[in-house]
Amino acid sequence: MPTPTNLTINASRLWDSLMELAKIGATAKGGVCRLTLTDLDKEARDLFASWCKAAGATISVDRMGNVFARRAGRDPARAPVMTGSHIDTQPTGGKFDGAYGVMAGLEVLRTLHETGVETEAPIEVAVWTNEEGARFAPAMMGSGVFTGIFKEDEIKAKTDRDGVSFGEALAKIGYAGPEPCGGREVGAFFECHIEQGPILEADGKTIGVVTGGQAQRWYEANLTGQESHAGTTPMERRRDALLGAARLIDMVNHIGITHLPAARATCGVIEAQPQSRNTVPGRVFLTVEFRHPDEVELKTMDETFRAQAARIASEIGLALDIQEIWHFPATPFDADCIAAVRAAAQSRGYAHRDIISGAGHDALYMARVAPTAMIFVPCADGISHNEIEAASAGDLAAGCQVLLDAMLHRANAPG
Amino acid sequence: MPTPTNLTINASRLWDSLMELAKIGATAKGGVCRLTLTDLDKEARDLFASWCKAAGATISVDRMGNVFARRAGRDPARAPVMTGSHIDTQPTGGKFDGAYGVMAGLEVLRTLHETGVETEAPIEVAVWTNEEGARFAPAMMGSGVFTGIFKEDEIKAKTDRDGVSFGEALAKIGYAGPEPCGGREVGAFFECHIEQGPILEADGKTIGVVTGGQAQRWYEANLTGQESHAGTTPMERRRDALLGAARLIDMVNHIGITHLPAARATCGVIEAQPQSRNTVPGRVFLTVEFRHPDEVELKTMDETFRAQAARIASEIGLALDIQEIWHFPATPFDADCIAAVRAAAQSRGYAHRDIISGAGHDALYMARVAPTAMIFVPCADGISHNEIEAASAGDLAAGCQVLLDAMLHRANAPG
Repeated sequence: MPTPTNLTINASRLWDSLMELAKIGATAKGGVCRLTLTDLDKEARDLFASWCKAAGATISVDRMGNVFARRAGRDPARAPVMTGSHIDTQPTGGKFDGAYGVMAGLEVLRTLHETGVETEAPIEVAVWTNEEGARFAPAMMGSGVFTGIFKEDEIKAKTDRDGVSFGEALAKIGYAGPEPCGGREVGAFFECHIEQGPILEADGKTIGVVTGGQAQRWYEANLTGQESHAGTTPMERRRDALLGAARLIDMVNHIGITHLPAARATCGVIEAQPQSRNTVPGRVFLTVEFRHPDEVELKTMDETFRAQAARIASEIGLALDIQEIWHFPATPFDADCIAAVRAAAQSRGYAHRDIISGAGHDALYMARVAPTAMIFVPCADGISHNEIEAASAGDLAAGCQVLLDAMLHRANAPG
Repeated sequence: MPTPTNLTINASRLWDSLMELAKIGATAKGGVCRLTLTDLDKEARDLFASWCKAAGATISVDRMGNVFARRAGRDPARAPVMTGSHIDTQPTGGKFDGAYGVMAGLEVLRTLHETGVETEAPIEVAVWTNEEGARFAPAMMGSGVFTGIFKEDEIKAKTDRDGVSFGEALAKIGYAGPEPCGGREVGAFFECHIEQGPILEADGKTIGVVTGGQAQRWYEANLTGQESHAGTTPMERRRDALLGAARLIDMVNHIGITHLPAARATCGVIEAQPQSRNTVPGRVFLTVEFRHPDEVELKTMDETFRAQAARIASEIGLALDIQEIWHFPATPFDADCIAAVRAAAQSRGYAHRDIISGAGHDALYMARVAPTAMIFVPCADGISHNEIEAASAGDLAAGCQVLLDAMLHRANAPG
């Protein structure tokens, strides 16, 4: 592996750009509300494009509104080394989720521009449309169409709560570009992001070397017993659906604990019927989800869950229906891209550790079409999707420095 | 104890009257919808009054609309021996809940009338207004005002969902009577009722000798943890309010089981926040209720619940708030009235057992002002408050026979 270059990003410029971008849609509580394809989104896109042009890059926009700022390489035949993220936010979002990955890419362009360093492969910074999925569902639409996971026509027909279609909204802000979405080679993809979890902070690490994304299995469970009078029905004659759900919830949590440290096991939604204080509940709907980076481990969790759930239901005399409604495969990142990130962190002397991405990111889709890795930095208390989301200027700069080093490694590697 | 008389009630007449009454508000599924103070309620009251008059009784109505059919005794100075129940129903009620107790009282009047048997004390059959609480809350309004538990003015001001007050509705059907409600002596009170639970049927018994009503403690529990991302938050760093609620539910059930056979322990309502599939729940609201005929046992259940709940919350790092919102005291019935019921069942050769009332009944209020007992008969599968509610003509007749015998015992006992 070649020694990382000695180019250094400008930490203050990165921070100032993040704060400047955060003014667009700033909320009273210090957060940002910049929903996708709104006038605020357009304003942020325009600002990004103007900054990139000033740094010598060329802007193109594809039919999904994904924006690409390209800096030419010495070899125009080589596929670009790309970075990027998103600049749309949750309704009560923070300053860093997505924005950090885009501003880090901008800082890479600026550093290369001001030093005049040339790369073999072109460098691109992408702004993916509607990562959050807050206005139009599902999430990660721009990268999803780019990587062939979603169909452009179907995505453009999706409507928000006011009945406005994605396609209409995109055209209205002037970002329905002429370029085809996807179908072109990407040499490598890197994405900087705040962790959105507590692990790096708790472990005293500055850089998370993201080795992949978790596989996920999502379920809906329906338990059916017998509604009965809470005063007249003896304990031993009850078929209490809520008691069954309670034991399922505890069991799901136990499965998570027995597959530490990587496993996640969560019951998020519960609906009991008939919701009467003095009636034994007859029916419960419960959502369950498991996550693990290893499909084999996840399958074991699935099997344990189904067997234990059947036993619990049988003990209480409940009918049980479990439907797996979603299976998102494990996303291992590219070994060389991961190594480049780890080597950069090591070389720069940043405390680092390997980590799995628990949340969804555009990079998880990009990993299907290009060698990919991610760089995490800590966020305060692991809090994200919240106006109080916070990250330190030093950590953000460190992540950006690792990004620059890793991109240079890929862009200058033998073609 | 004097030997029960050899008077025999007319089983067919009792059944026919029940079926005739059930036509008023009959539903397509074989049940009855006869909400309190509606035109159907008036029609049923009028029918009851006409039947009682034909059996030689005198009708009076008090200011709460409670109807009393009185048959004179030889000693007009003695307080009446009373029976009765209610003829209002749930919106999807059955033919027997309440109606049985009133028709059994009518059958007592008819049997005495046709045989010309005189009693020392007067006999009265009461129809209590709004036992169900389905149209106007709370339940058991008529007996509640009669026994001084509720204030007449406050009850009359209660409104239904259409804004109609109890007082207006009572006047509209012509049952705002002139008599004061309560304040007069009742020598004894008996009430026949279907069990509304599964115990007698499962135990092969015809008569339940009801020894009292359960004490109840109702609670609201709020558990507060931390909402967090289901993908990025490690298991060991979660403060999952739903996990805490699950352990509370299982623990509440365990408390019920450790105080068998009389205890009841139920969690009826659960509300989790934010109800998102991929968010660890941060807050849960849960209702809990315990019932036991023995206040000391119930207090033990209460103490165990509070201690265990605190331990569970502490283990998961949750804030816990438990409020006791209602404490209904245990209602032991009168020893002599219970003995009269038991002796009658024994003498008539009916399989019988002692039983505690798990549900609310007018008799539980009457027990505060008069020597009281109840007579339960089985209902199919323990189902009540349902259009499929069912009871056998033979069991209903047996209960009515026990009622007659017990009332005669009290009415002819030395004054």
